Amino acid sequence: MKRTTADNVVYGIVASYDTDGRTHRIGHMFLPSHKRAIGILENVRRLIFPGYFSRKELTATNLRPHVEHLVAEIREDLEHEINACLCTERRCSRCEDPDCCATGAADMAVGFLQRIPAIRDMLALDAQAAYDGDPAAKSIDEIIYCYPGFHAVTVYRIAHELLELGVPLMPRTLCEHAHSATGADIHPGAKIGKSFFIDHATGVVIGETTEIGNNVKIYQGVTLGARSFPKDERGKVIKGYKRHPTLRDDVTVYPNATIRGGRTVIGSGVTVGGNAYVTESVEADTVVEQEKPGLRVVSKKHGKGGQAEPPG
Amino acid sequence: MKRTTADNVVYGIVASYDTDGRTHRIGHMFLPSHKRAIGILENVRRLIFPGYFSRKELTATNLRPHVEHLVAEIREDLEHEINACLCTERRCSRCEDPDCCATGAADMAVGFLQRIPAIRDMLALDAQAAYDGDPAAKSIDEIIYCYPGFHAVTVYRIAHELLELGVPLMPRTLCEHAHSATGADIHPGAKIGKSFFIDHATGVVIGETTEIGNNVKIYQGVTLGARSFPKDERGKVIKGYKRHPTLRDDVTVYPNATIRGGRTVIGSGVTVGGNAYVTESVEADTVVEQEKPGLRVVSKKHGKGGQAEPPG
Amino acid sequence: MKRTTADNVVYGIVASYDTDGRTHRIGHMFLPSHKRAIGILENVRRLIFPGYFSRKELTATNLRPHVEHLVAEIREDLEHEINACLCTERRCSRCEDPDCCATGAADMAVGFLQRIPAIRDMLALDAQAAYDGDPAAKSIDEIIYCYPGFHAVTVYRIAHELLELGVPLMPRTLCEHAHSATGADIHPGAKIGKSFFIDHATGVVIGETTEIGNNVKIYQGVTLGARSFPKDERGKVIKGYKRHPTLRDDVTVYPNATIRGGRTVIGSGVTVGGNAYVTESVEADTVVEQEKPGLRVVSKKHGKGGQAEPPG
Repeated sequence: MKRTTADNVVYGIVASYDTDGRTHRIGHMFLPSHKRAIGILENVRRLIFPGYFSRKELTATNLRPHVEHLVAEIREDLEHEINACLCTERRCSRCEDPDCCATGAADMAVGFLQRIPAIRDMLALDAQAAYDGDPAAKSIDEIIYCYPGFHAVTVYRIAHELLELGVPLMPRTLCEHAHSATGADIHPGAKIGKSFFIDHATGVVIGETTEIGNNVKIYQGVTLGARSFPKDERGKVIKGYKRHPTLRDDVTVYPNATIRGGRTVIGSGVTVGGNAYVTESVEADTVVEQEKPGLRVVSKKHGKGGQAEPPG
Repeated sequence: MKRTTADNVVYGIVASYDTDGRTHRIGHMFLPSHKRAIGILENVRRLIFPGYFSRKELTATNLRPHVEHLVAEIREDLEHEINACLCTERRCSRCEDPDCCATGAADMAVGFLQRIPAIRDMLALDAQAAYDGDPAAKSIDEIIYCYPGFHAVTVYRIAHELLELGVPLMPRTLCEHAHSATGADIHPGAKIGKSFFIDHATGVVIGETTEIGNNVKIYQGVTLGARSFPKDERGKVIKGYKRHPTLRDDVTVYPNATIRGGRTVIGSGVTVGGNAYVTESVEADTVVEQEKPGLRVVSKKHGKGGQAEPPG
Repeated sequence: MKRTTADNVVYGIVASYDTDGRTHRIGHMFLPSHKRAIGILENVRRLIFPGYFSRKELTATNLRPHVEHLVAEIREDLEHEINACLCTERRCSRCEDPDCCATGAADMAVGFLQRIPAIRDMLALDAQAAYDGDPAAKSIDEIIYCYPGFHAVTVYRIAHELLELGVPLMPRTLCEHAHSATGADIHPGAKIGKSFFIDHATGVVIGETTEIGNNVKIYQGVTLGARSFPKDERGKVIKGYKRHPTLRDDVTVYPNATIRGGRTVIGSGVTVGGNAYVTESVEADTVVEQEKPGLRVVSKKHGKGGQAEPPG
């Protein structure tokens, strides 16, 4: 384009940065691209499931150097990423001393790596639960390698540990990455017990203050959501406090059911039916089903009758 | 494989290209891989939100050269991509003079860059609406950096501008990329007002001829769809005309609600309840809820009763 | 981190591998990263739709060498990937002779390439069905280039061929990749007839033993699922046998409808309404709609009444 046009375009854009401080981070530490966070996640999965996502074959002899290398790489990248997230939360400007962030980041990175064996234990139970719960599952290898629900739970367990360590921003970034890949939106703040299985995954929403017990199974399209939230005098919603449901042990929630409210407790052993809409607590060891209105079946008079019903 | 087998395989495939002209573009300008379109999109986001997705830290001093460089790169790539889209729409064969496409592409690329400040203004309001509307939101940084609903709206606003400039194919390609990343399927042709917020995003469908006012908030699984469409004498659906609903200002639509039909108008200030199924217009300042049939709660006789309800 | 800390971290992780054989593949052939499987898929799409996803313009003169090159590349990569999948299924240890896997892999790779023309024929009909069925579709080029439903069907048809050839693991991996990209979860084992169209795609689930006839059209959020499954004495679900529904020719299923059960047969020409919940067979040439309970419309007393309804 003509020089003057180019100048005007650049001028207009630069000028627009001054008008709104909410949407630029000029003079602040920049946020690294998601690619780095996702690169770390992929390396952590290689560490958690050796031989599934590797670049080479692992043997008793090459295992230890492989782990040493991975651990060193993850630690360095994680430290750098956490540092950026801390500076973002505190909006450190360049002139400030970033040591506090750097020190905290180093401790958090090590703290996370020390939790890897515990995370492996949890994920082994989740993989077994997926295999036991799905007739289409051919092997546990298949589940670890390509089941979206298991992937979402893997990322949640990693992100939840980072959140517990006090890492800002990155846990949500990782869970949103898994949400994008699997369609399951699990907030890293949710508390989820052992042997958890999500089948098909698409459309699942698990809110920030949800609490889930052991041996719980949920299917596609299930929402564990908020019921309502009070607003401040400005009409803005107030942040924090429990607004999502509690599911006790051995609960199964079938496709597209919705359970909402911070005081809603689903008792242990409950089965919630498909498309059920639950906003009150449910007693233990019951089956809850939405009464379905009847199905109307009408014979088609002429032709295909494509008009009879609306598309999406 | 054996030479003859290889030859036969190649022969069979090449022969199959001749049998169906619908599924090859041999002798026509090829369609570039989606990677280029997505690369442009990522650069545009860097330009719109400086410091969020950058590769380096931005300061008052390095800002202008950074913008100049990005603008030049986007302009060149965009011009090339739009050119390919124009040639695709017109099915230019190699022998034809492609200048008309090249000239149009250059104008459209500049026209788009001139709209960046206006797009920034819209997106600042969308980001604020997301922060105000979600108790789990920690900061506007978090929303810009990783909220899927905000990402879907960002891509929609970019794609809608390209569509308004007359760019074929690319707007839909970008929106489908966002659909893939977020689960929200927003057609670039939809008209959406200021301060729009989609929470959780997965399963949202907003049709081509939808019209949405200001301060509208929708949740996961909401369909703003068509009701039916007339077919021509061949039984094929007729293209074009308004078949999706209109939402006025200050409307909130809760999860998994469905609103359909080109003559369906949701008045300003309306709240549409979760799972509601709306095919008629709704008066302003009302709450619309689907009456729910009762919940049947049955105690489990023996064991876990996993049979009681079907999985997906 | 300090040397000792690093050693302890590495030691703890390596030790954790010994405690659970389910979650590592040390001493077994490793599973290649998904990137390779997806790279193969992208090349196969280039072969099936020449000129749509190419890196260069195709002409009568450069076509044959282009196809020869692609075929050779796909064959080599596919052979290697199938080999890894066979070794995974058989859990070949390094000491075993892998020739059986290598030989089988070579035959399956060639067998797949010989099926490309037949796959192209099916996909041409699917693309036409998408164009005919969607008023928003501007051209068949647009459908092939960026329609998610068509992408999901493309990957399903490729994965189903691999499954028929006896390739383990990879078909499911490819379908889960498409599930991730499109939100449509089609099991490669499903049987799907000609001219199949999925619109919007997000949230669609088509189970392993589903059977679908010709000219079937389904919309977002449709589940073709299982109704229940018997469990063995350990309370684990039994694998295999038909547990998903059958749809005959010319069936249309509107958004968010659920059809379940291995003995549920939807007759030819049936239209299933939006949000319908069907668990029994339906007679041919009928329209099935869920009776909707009434909509309650309540005027808002004071303010926005955001409390009136829960978010997700």
